[in-house]
Amino acid sequence: MLDKLKNEVYQANIGLVKHGLVIHTWGNASGRDPGSGMIVIKPSGVGYSSMKAGDMVVLDPDGRVVEGDYSPSTDAPTHLYLYRKYPSLGGVVHTHSTFATAWAQAGKDIPPFGTTHADHYYGEVPCSRKLSSDEVENDYELNTGKVIAERLGLLDPLVIPSVLVNGHGPFCWGIDAAEAVYNAAALEEIARMALYTVVLGGKESIDKFLLDRHYLRKHGKNAYYGQVKKNKK
Amino acid sequence: MLDKLKNEVYQANIGLVKHGLVIHTWGNASGRDPGSGMIVIKPSGVGYSSMKAGDMVVLDPDGRVVEGDYSPSTDAPTHLYLYRKYPSLGGVVHTHSTFATAWAQAGKDIPPFGTTHADHYYGEVPCSRKLSSDEVENDYELNTGKVIAERLGLLDPLVIPSVLVNGHGPFCWGIDAAEAVYNAAALEEIARMALYTVVLGGKESIDKFLLDRHYLRKHGKNAYYGQVKKNKK
Amino acid sequence: MLDKLKNEVYQANIGLVKHGLVIHTWGNASGRDPGSGMIVIKPSGVGYSSMKAGDMVVLDPDGRVVEGDYSPSTDAPTHLYLYRKYPSLGGVVHTHSTFATAWAQAGKDIPPFGTTHADHYYGEVPCSRKLSSDEVENDYELNTGKVIAERLGLLDPLVIPSVLVNGHGPFCWGIDAAEAVYNAAALEEIARMALYTVVLGGKESIDKFLLDRHYLRKHGKNAYYGQVKKNKK
Amino acid sequence: MLDKLKNEVYQANIGLVKHGLVIHTWGNASGRDPGSGMIVIKPSGVGYSSMKAGDMVVLDPDGRVVEGDYSPSTDAPTHLYLYRKYPSLGGVVHTHSTFATAWAQAGKDIPPFGTTHADHYYGEVPCSRKLSSDEVENDYELNTGKVIAERLGLLDPLVIPSVLVNGHGPFCWGIDAAEAVYNAAALEEIARMALYTVVLGGKESIDKFLLDRHYLRKHGKNAYYGQVKKNKK
Repeated sequence: MLDKLKNEVYQANIGLVKHGLVIHTWGNASGRDPGSGMIVIKPSGVGYSSMKAGDMVVLDPDGRVVEGDYSPSTDAPTHLYLYRKYPSLGGVVHTHSTFATAWAQAGKDIPPFGTTHADHYYGEVPCSRKLSSDEVENDYELNTGKVIAERLGLLDPLVIPSVLVNGHGPFCWGIDAAEAVYNAAALEEIARMALYTVVLGGKESIDKFLLDRHYLRKHGKNAYYGQVKKNKK
Repeated sequence: MLDKLKNEVYQANIGLVKHGLVIHTWGNASGRDPGSGMIVIKPSGVGYSSMKAGDMVVLDPDGRVVEGDYSPSTDAPTHLYLYRKYPSLGGVVHTHSTFATAWAQAGKDIPPFGTTHADHYYGEVPCSRKLSSDEVENDYELNTGKVIAERLGLLDPLVIPSVLVNGHGPFCWGIDAAEAVYNAAALEEIARMALYTVVLGGKESIDKFLLDRHYLRKHGKNAYYGQVKKNKK
Repeated sequence: MLDKLKNEVYQANIGLVKHGLVIHTWGNASGRDPGSGMIVIKPSGVGYSSMKAGDMVVLDPDGRVVEGDYSPSTDAPTHLYLYRKYPSLGGVVHTHSTFATAWAQAGKDIPPFGTTHADHYYGEVPCSRKLSSDEVENDYELNTGKVIAERLGLLDPLVIPSVLVNGHGPFCWGIDAAEAVYNAAALEEIARMALYTVVLGGKESIDKFLLDRHYLRKHGKNAYYGQVKKNKK
Repeated sequence: MLDKLKNEVYQANIGLVKHGLVIHTWGNASGRDPGSGMIVIKPSGVGYSSMKAGDMVVLDPDGRVVEGDYSPSTDAPTHLYLYRKYPSLGGVVHTHSTFATAWAQAGKDIPPFGTTHADHYYGEVPCSRKLSSDEVENDYELNTGKVIAERLGLLDPLVIPSVLVNGHGPFCWGIDAAEAVYNAAALEEIARMALYTVVLGGKESIDKFLLDRHYLRKHGKNAYYGQVKKNKK
């Protein structure tokens, strides 16, 4: 079942390796079938080089395994929470990519230091609060999803398509698994540029009107970046 | 029309990827036909891997599409302004390469810390002022060109072949698209070395006589670098 | 003799190059045969590209060459000491990988700044004390092993599978040579993230309960990461 | 003439690219024929990808072109001075590799922070003084060689096989061109580790007895690293 989505999710997981966002098994990607609401996700702890599209695990929205020979990614409850909370999401990605993780480990939002950032995030990339002892000890992965949503608050997740989990690393998403990977790669580069900006003594976010201009020329109804008949990316 | 130039501009865009200067669609290169004055530029938001030479868009000097199935790069008005302002330019490149962008985000000129810099720029790599609210809200891309020219002032653009746009990233140019890419790659490496020099506590620009020596042994009528009968690069 | 182990150790040494952990001949991997207790190790100063599985050197537990055309790695006495001291080890790796070595050269433990660290080390990655003049001048490589064991103290080496030798670089280990390489690659990335965390002003280790959660979901009897029937990695 | 040496020097120049030490034409390697004393060097400003072994230029010890269709590297007088001054040298390399150049631009010696350094340099990697206006304006490349030799002073160039030229970059050498490239690659990695050590607050050089141990186990008559019958590298 869901062979096309399994292949998309497989390609998304492989894409994490191609973009240099993961080593070993430090990342996972999932996608949602818009029709059935089923989630397809990477199996836990399986290496990217030996993994096949058919190894992807199918879960129902509450996390029951519907199909698959393997256990799903340990982070599945985080993915599932985000899908339940945000109907607009079609793909979720988690990585420990170097620079995004460094910001998460420092417990800091990434300020919009430039237009590269503004092209992708309509404001700072938010960092969550730390989880409490109770949140870590009980339903940890579910609570990771909750703390992401808490940090987003009223923000549209497609306008701020990533949150850094404090002391952990980035979760990214999009309308499908490919866009979630695209955002994870953009985030890593933005995090890297931002760190080097800090090293050079940069402190100021760009002006609000420049943030507006760049974000809105790529996104929303007045966007003029890209091709008219094509997806905005 | 202009098939040879389209191919040169296509190769220049691919060159940005090969030199590691862009990810996703974060960059664009253009070239000018010396005969007709027509500009050939990358289409907007089209991925480098799927792009073909025939997809390049032909514009007249005022930006009207003369040929092409796609919309031109959103940054086309910046390229066009630079071509109109500076008759010596035959190629323009814009990237968000990591280290050059970090300097732009910090809003700082790159000082000539060493001879690598002096081999390519006859002085600091200048960073523009920020654009005003009005400049961003009306004709933003055109005004980006104007602020670059304002920062260059009386400088010869072939002697300082790059400007960092404040809070944005580098624009580079040359006598043709290939040289613009060459300069974009040189700039990124120079920006990287300069950042690490700052990390080590380096503060001083090289002496003016050393800057002269290195710049002038590669450029101008008394140059003695390279082969006599060959282009200086 | 021990052809299978020789091939594993050969692959482990090649793995150091593939993971970008060594240049020139700056690293070595070894493995122990659980049956005979024999150690198979890289020959000294032989380049990775010309090396063959049959070039691996077989040593008895006291370091006498049992088989091999080459002298063993100069660091063999360190490997041998660790094998004798810790019966649980089946593989040992030494590298001069950039970021782990930078922490060793700064003489600092790597604090557990995030869950990436906690997934692999149940606490800080310890840095040894400096060796004394006498320890360096007599049986230097043996004393390097001793100072590693001294720093581990009562810690289980499979729970803290690396020690940074002060002013030198990392030694890593595991149940076999492949796991030791896996840990060396994880360490390098953790060291890199930690350095960038420091650059961003990060100072705090993660909470003990989060360290417990991440370490124990991957390791030990209540682990739930990975596949039930498969090795935990 | 000297076809074997031309090929070695060609391979050395290509090796600079393979080791990631140069972009564009920012580096050059040369070798000396022990019999005739002739020097074979890269042609000036010729790209590495189009260059062939037969393009290498043959110079006599005073720099007259003996054979070759191209002009020699602009830095030839520096190479030639070093060969005349130090009969033990068989190869010289100049690069603008990122981290070694950052130290040169900061005008600082690289302290021996660890054993990686001590394995290759028997003391700090020295940085020269700046050249005076007169030295830059007259016989600049020759004076670059002189300032390197001045900085070495009584040091054996094979014991300290690199000097950083202040505000410029590294010159490295060895018994042949291949060893000079080997040293250039080692230097770049040592410079990188040392910079990150500084970032982590590391300040202390290793103890003299550890420096002795590491240097002398790889070099000189009591060396015990590598294979007895093989070259020490």
